Amino acid sequence: MNIKAVNKITNYKYLNLFSVSYEDKKKTEKEWILASRSPNVDLNPEEPITPDAVVVVPFHIKQNKLVIIKEFRVALADYQYGFPAGLLDPGETIDVAGKRELYEETGLNLIKVIKKSPAIYSSSGMTDESVSMLFAECDGEPTNEYNEDSEDIEVLMVSQQDAIKLLGKNHEKFDVKSWLILNTYAEHGIL
Amino acid sequence: MNIKAVNKITNYKYLNLFSVSYEDKKKTEKEWILASRSPNVDLNPEEPITPDAVVVVPFHIKQNKLVIIKEFRVALADYQYGFPAGLLDPGETIDVAGKRELYEETGLNLIKVIKKSPAIYSSSGMTDESVSMLFAECDGEPTNEYNEDSEDIEVLMVSQQDAIKLLGKNHEKFDVKSWLILNTYAEHGIL
Repeated sequence: MNIKAVNKITNYKYLNLFSVSYEDKKKTEKEWILASRSPNVDLNPEEPITPDAVVVVPFHIKQNKLVIIKEFRVALADYQYGFPAGLLDPGETIDVAGKRELYEETGLNLIKVIKKSPAIYSSSGMTDESVSMLFAECDGEPTNEYNEDSEDIEVLMVSQQDAIKLLGKNHEKFDVKSWLILNTYAEHGIL
Repeated sequence: MNIKAVNKITNYKYLNLFSVSYEDKKKTEKEWILASRSPNVDLNPEEPITPDAVVVVPFHIKQNKLVIIKEFRVALADYQYGFPAGLLDPGETIDVAGKRELYEETGLNLIKVIKKSPAIYSSSGMTDESVSMLFAECDGEPTNEYNEDSEDIEVLMVSQQDAIKLLGKNHEKFDVKSWLILNTYAEHGIL
């Protein structure tokens, strides 16, 4: 496989389409369209890669419950269950962004990072978007006070039994990451 | 939150950008850009939703190992660890698409579906793309014989010990789903 060139197709602030021309295994020239949050797609990125976003998997120690949010997503025109998450501000570390997003979206305080993934890719058939998953302990009382005007968020404290019930509901929408983690939590009581 | 209108920005075959205008909680009009695999984004989709793609989590019973692929992804200009996956053909069921993709990408035979997710969303901050996760038992010998010319795939049979080693490697790229599942498998020996 041989990447030949990348062309930027659109010019929006947060998301754009790019066209990549490449040669397949038989040297046939082909085109792949991808969406990217980067202003320019870099085909030779430096290591280590900074993720676009952080996704916090918060566990409330005092309540012994997993924290999930039910959030309105414009892209789905509907509410979806997921985790607190957001783009890293320029120069911001994953831990600082995770603490900030958790507080803004739920009012909860991140007190200890348990586990942190490297930059992992959301869906590389269509995008180079990457996130870091930050498993963390938190405390405090949930509130919507620090939400932005474009955020419509309900905070849920979820026990293993609640997770089983939640996953059994029909017509509810889940983010991939929250569905996988809820599923392990429901079946085995672990994260 | 109130969605007002959707406009299609580009006109490619497999992926396009759309602009959604909406009112936030304070009735301020805003714009959200999303990428979609759908030719037209439907703001009132019928239930149940058909996922765009299937992602197979194959467990090889005779070898007692999880199957992972290392695949060249044009969007990353690099190899990435992930699961066999692909878009559903028109009218195709999730199970049939899963069996087909597993065979095409690895040469393995899907023999039993263990668990199937509903349509769950890849990254709803930027796309309405959804997938169904198909946990399945498989058998057979891995081969690249049925790969397409645009596919460059290595099949790996992964024990719990292998998963621990794989996750410990630096500078390797993982899909979000494979990282989460490998992580649970490495830590607890379960899927």
